[in-house]
Amino acid sequence: MRTEFHADLDEVRALLVAMADEVRAAMRRATAALLNADAGVAEGVVTGDAAVNQLHKEVEEKVYALLARQAPVASDLRLVVTALHIAADFERMGDLAKHVAKTALRRHPVRAVPDDLVTVIRDMADVADRIAGKISQVMANPDATLAAELETDDDAMDELHKGLFVVLLGAAWKHGVESAIDGALLGRFYERFADHAVNAGHHMFFLVTGETMQTT
Amino acid sequence: MRTEFHADLDEVRALLVAMADEVRAAMRRATAALLNADAGVAEGVVTGDAAVNQLHKEVEEKVYALLARQAPVASDLRLVVTALHIAADFERMGDLAKHVAKTALRRHPVRAVPDDLVTVIRDMADVADRIAGKISQVMANPDATLAAELETDDDAMDELHKGLFVVLLGAAWKHGVESAIDGALLGRFYERFADHAVNAGHHMFFLVTGETMQTT
Repeated sequence: MRTEFHADLDEVRALLVAMADEVRAAMRRATAALLNADAGVAEGVVTGDAAVNQLHKEVEEKVYALLARQAPVASDLRLVVTALHIAADFERMGDLAKHVAKTALRRHPVRAVPDDLVTVIRDMADVADRIAGKISQVMANPDATLAAELETDDDAMDELHKGLFVVLLGAAWKHGVESAIDGALLGRFYERFADHAVNAGHHMFFLVTGETMQTT
Repeated sequence: MRTEFHADLDEVRALLVAMADEVRAAMRRATAALLNADAGVAEGVVTGDAAVNQLHKEVEEKVYALLARQAPVASDLRLVVTALHIAADFERMGDLAKHVAKTALRRHPVRAVPDDLVTVIRDMADVADRIAGKISQVMANPDATLAAELETDDDAMDELHKGLFVVLLGAAWKHGVESAIDGALLGRFYERFADHAVNAGHHMFFLVTGETMQTT
């Protein structure tokens, strides 16, 4: 029974890692579509979100099956329910990648990101990608160093987000209202994506180790 | 056993309705703070979000207890897990009310919403409030009419959201970039709040009736 529970939980974890990889790749493609004003790539991200939602359903079905067959209690039960939280975070991350792609599409063939914002948007995308990449890392090697890294990454994202607004609201801004709104919304999408990824990272740590992630 | 399960489920439902009422009231206060540039009320919303998070924890604890004690299977299990989805939607709605309140605070003592946007923001707030109010209604009287109403309300929100952008991007806009960004973000907060409320409404219908909400 105990072994069966762990085998089932391993399957859930494997599905979650597949979801993490999927939404990370989606955000990478969305960023490329955004910075290159590439409608084809952007459309691929929008339609590709169905695969993330499908994985979400699979996680839920597997969790239902596990709960019904094993009826875990106490800490085991918490582990299983944590998987649902992680899956919900990943689904939201997929949605946010889709929002970025749709922003690219709405302004196409014009690039939605004016020159003045390329660096900060690229930096935000890089941090988001780095954080999302740590989900798989938590699976392979869950240690306290990662927890500290996630906090540093999250701080870096907050700084970039503030820096974005300094550019948008600066006297030198010459790209008008529409580009400023797009810039603000894009900033929010990356910031939210990272936020969900940090949450998922913490939950994943618990799912792998059964312990709450603590910074050193 | 069966009766005990239903008694437990009733308790979960009651907590969820308390959460729904709490986040609805929070968004009302946030809107008042926003339109009156009232920092005191806005701060109350920000600090008050802790109560929503506390209710969220209580729902989770009750669900854990229920799962552990009753080990429900099949459709009963789905009902219980649905409660977690609803609670997560409500928690996000509380966060969005907090975002609106923080926008009011950031621009205080200036009102974050210029005259040209007051009507559309008030209309969006009204629709959001109407949708959130239907959660309690679903509990008292779950019928197919409500499902159709939720769709109509959601369409109304989408139209208002589009109308907001027409104003922001119109040639007559004279309130500068910062107000435009605030307007766009506020629009998104109300639209997201309504979206989570519609989701929660559908889930709540399932939690009360055991059936998926269908439009007539």
